[in-house]
Amino acid sequence: MKNCFVAQSGGPTVAINASLAGVIAGVAGSGMYDTLYGSINGIKGLIDDKLMNLSTTIAGNPDLMKRLIHTPAMYLGSCRFKLPSWKEDVSVYETIFKRFKEYDIGAFFYIGGNDSMDTVLKLSDYAKSIGSDIRIIGVPKTIDNDLMVTDHTPGYGSAAKYVATSVLEVAHDTYIYAVKTVTIIEIMGRDAGWLTAAAALARNSYSNAPQLIYLPETDFNKDNFVDDVRNLLKNNDSVIVAVSEGIHDAEGNYISAGKSTADTFGHSQLSGAGKALEYIIKDTLGVKVRSIEINTLQRCGAHISSKTDLDEAYASGKSAVNYAEEGLSGIMVIMNRVSDSPYTIEYSSARIADIANEAKSVPREWINERGNDIMPAMLDYLRPLIQGETPVEYKNGLPVYMDVSHLIHK
Amino acid sequence: MKNCFVAQSGGPTVAINASLAGVIAGVAGSGMYDTLYGSINGIKGLIDDKLMNLSTTIAGNPDLMKRLIHTPAMYLGSCRFKLPSWKEDVSVYETIFKRFKEYDIGAFFYIGGNDSMDTVLKLSDYAKSIGSDIRIIGVPKTIDNDLMVTDHTPGYGSAAKYVATSVLEVAHDTYIYAVKTVTIIEIMGRDAGWLTAAAALARNSYSNAPQLIYLPETDFNKDNFVDDVRNLLKNNDSVIVAVSEGIHDAEGNYISAGKSTADTFGHSQLSGAGKALEYIIKDTLGVKVRSIEINTLQRCGAHISSKTDLDEAYASGKSAVNYAEEGLSGIMVIMNRVSDSPYTIEYSSARIADIANEAKSVPREWINERGNDIMPAMLDYLRPLIQGETPVEYKNGLPVYMDVSHLIHK
Repeated sequence: MKNCFVAQSGGPTVAINASLAGVIAGVAGSGMYDTLYGSINGIKGLIDDKLMNLSTTIAGNPDLMKRLIHTPAMYLGSCRFKLPSWKEDVSVYETIFKRFKEYDIGAFFYIGGNDSMDTVLKLSDYAKSIGSDIRIIGVPKTIDNDLMVTDHTPGYGSAAKYVATSVLEVAHDTYIYAVKTVTIIEIMGRDAGWLTAAAALARNSYSNAPQLIYLPETDFNKDNFVDDVRNLLKNNDSVIVAVSEGIHDAEGNYISAGKSTADTFGHSQLSGAGKALEYIIKDTLGVKVRSIEINTLQRCGAHISSKTDLDEAYASGKSAVNYAEEGLSGIMVIMNRVSDSPYTIEYSSARIADIANEAKSVPREWINERGNDIMPAMLDYLRPLIQGETPVEYKNGLPVYMDVSHLIHK
Repeated sequence: MKNCFVAQSGGPTVAINASLAGVIAGVAGSGMYDTLYGSINGIKGLIDDKLMNLSTTIAGNPDLMKRLIHTPAMYLGSCRFKLPSWKEDVSVYETIFKRFKEYDIGAFFYIGGNDSMDTVLKLSDYAKSIGSDIRIIGVPKTIDNDLMVTDHTPGYGSAAKYVATSVLEVAHDTYIYAVKTVTIIEIMGRDAGWLTAAAALARNSYSNAPQLIYLPETDFNKDNFVDDVRNLLKNNDSVIVAVSEGIHDAEGNYISAGKSTADTFGHSQLSGAGKALEYIIKDTLGVKVRSIEINTLQRCGAHISSKTDLDEAYASGKSAVNYAEEGLSGIMVIMNRVSDSPYTIEYSSARIADIANEAKSVPREWINERGNDIMPAMLDYLRPLIQGETPVEYKNGLPVYMDVSHLIHK
C-alpha cells in the first residue's frame, strides 16, 4: 500500500484542522493507503523534509482526533510560498517528487485557499507532464468564502458566527446609554464582502443592528453614507455600521483614514476603513462615534465555532481521500447546495483549473440598490452555515487545544 | 411591605446582569420587601420616573431569570451621571427621595463601579442627614477589578477568561509561520493592570506566550523593552507582548503612538500603547510586527463568561438584599477570600466611605523586578476566578440574550 502526504497553507481558520482530521480519518479507514505524513509549514515541509507521522500519533486516538477538530489555526503550520512555473524552474518540483518517491507516496492533500489551489494546479500539471500517477487533491478553506465553483468554503461559517455574535454583543454594549452614538465595526475581507455580510445575522426581534452594511462589491459614496447615518439617527439612539476593510470609492481607491503625515516616530500611519468612517461621521455629524476592528479572533476564535462548519470541513477532508482512491487528481473538493431548507449539501469534485487564481464575489443582486445593506437571499444562503455549537474541551477555565510544540521549538 | 429600586451604572461587564438577577431573586424571596422596580439608565431613571416592574416581568419566570444571568451589558441601561454635593445643590436629592416616597421604597440597590459607589455614598449621607431609613446599598462590578476592600469584583473573572482565551488563540494563530514575528496585544485598564495580568493565564505546557507583560503599575522603559524582545527572538520565532492601555514612562507620560500631525481629514490621531510598541519594534529590530487591540468583547463577550464570576455576581446581588433587610445602609457588598485552594470566599459588607473614589492597584510584589512580567502570586490569585463555563442559550446559531427594547425604543 502507498502512503500519503497532507499539508495546510494560507491564513488560519477555525475549521482547517477539522479538514486535517477528516483526511486522517479517511486514510486510517482506507483500503488503499497506509501511513499519512503531515508536512510542517505547508509545501515547504516537503522541500525541507520536515514531516510527522500522523497515523501513529493521532489517527488511533479518539480524544486527540476530537481535540484536533476544535483547535484553531494550522496544526501543521502554514507557509506563503508560491511555486514557480515548472517550465521555468523545475528544480523545486524535482525535490518534491523525489520526496514523494522516498516516502512511497500515492496521494498528496493540500488544505488551503486560492494560493494553495495554485500549488495544487501546478503540482498536478507537473505530475501529468512526467507521467506520475500521484493524486494531487485540494481541500478548500478560507474565512473569505471567495473560492469559485463550491457553494461555500469550510472556515467561513465559523467566522460568520463569530462576526454575528460579536455584532450582537457590541449592540448590547451600545444600547446602554441614552445618547446618540455611531459605532463602526470593521470586518475582514479585502476583495469580497461575504464575511461582512454575516453581520446582518445579528439582527433580531428587538435589535436592527447593524443598520448599515458596506461591502467591497459596490462603490462607497461618502455623501450617501452621511445622509444614511443622519436619517437613522432621527429614530435610533445607536447606529451600528458594518464595513468591510476593502471598501473603495468609484475610482477604486480604498477608503482609509489617509496617509497621514508622519507621526512622532516618523511613520506614516495608514488606518483602515473603520477609522476612516469614524472620522467622516465626526467631521460631518459631530455625534459620539467610535470604531472597532474585529480582530484576529474572527479567524481563530475556536471557542465559538459553527458545528455545521466543522462537520463539513471534516467531511471535505474525508471526501478528498475518497476522490484520491477513485483515481482523481488535479481537483478540489466542493460542496453543492441541494436546498436551503432543509439545508442539504452534496460533496463533489471540480477541476482545479477552474478554481485556482480566481475569486468569487457576493452577487450584486444580493446587495440592495443603494449599496448599504444586503438582500434577504444573502441571509437565506448564510443562515444554515452558522448552525450548531461545538463542545470545546475546557481545563482550568481555558480551552484545551492541540500541543503545537513542533511548530514552536524547531 | 415596602418596595425596592435597583439600577445599574458605569461601563458594561458580562456579570452585571447576574447581579441584577441576584437582587431580583433576593427581593422575590424576601419577607420584608414586596415589588422591585428597575430604574432605566441608572440614577437618571429615578429622576425622570423611568421605571419598570421587575417582580411581575422577570422574577417568577425561571427561563427569563437564567437568560438575564447570561446577557451582557446592562439590562436596565446605564448612565454617566455624577451627583452634585447635596450641600451645594439639594434639588436632585429631593427629586430622588420624592420618588422613593411615591413608590414606597425601603431599599435602593446600585450595581456599579467606582463612580457608582460615589452615588451610593452621597445618597446614604443625604438619607442620614434627613433622617430617612431607606437602605442604600452598593453592589460591585467592574472588569478593571480596582475597587478597594473587596478581594475582587464581579465582571473581572469573565473579562480575564476572555483575555486569556484570546491570547491563547492568537498564539496559535502566530505559531503557524516559520518566521520571526512580534505580536503586541493591547488590553483594557488605564490605571490598573489587573486585566492585562490575566494574559499570563494563556501560558501552558507548550506555549510561553505572552513572554512579556507590561502593567501601568510600573514605569515603562523603551530600551529595556527592545532588549527584552531582542533576547527573546533568539530562541522564539514568535514573541507575544501583553500591554495595558495605560502604560507610561518614568515621567508619567502615556506611551502612545504620539500626537501625529493631522491626517488627510484634518484630525490629529492619537494611537494607543499597542501601536506605539509596534512602531518601537519596527524602528529598532525591523522584524515583522503587528498590534491587536482586544476590543469591546473583553467586557461584553458573554458567550465565554466565567461560571465562578456569574455565580459570585448573583450571590452578591442576593447578599445586598439580605444586608438591606438587616438594616445596613451606606455599604457595599464585598468578598473576602478565605483560601486560594480550595478556593473559598465569604460575602460581607464594607463602609462605602472606604471604597468610593479610591482605586486598587496590582501590588508591586506581584510584578517582577524588571517590570516585564507578573509573579506566581498573581496567578494564584487569578486562576480561581476564571473557572467554569456557563450554558449560554443558542437559537439559530446565535446566543439568545434578553430583549432590551425598553432601552432602544423610547
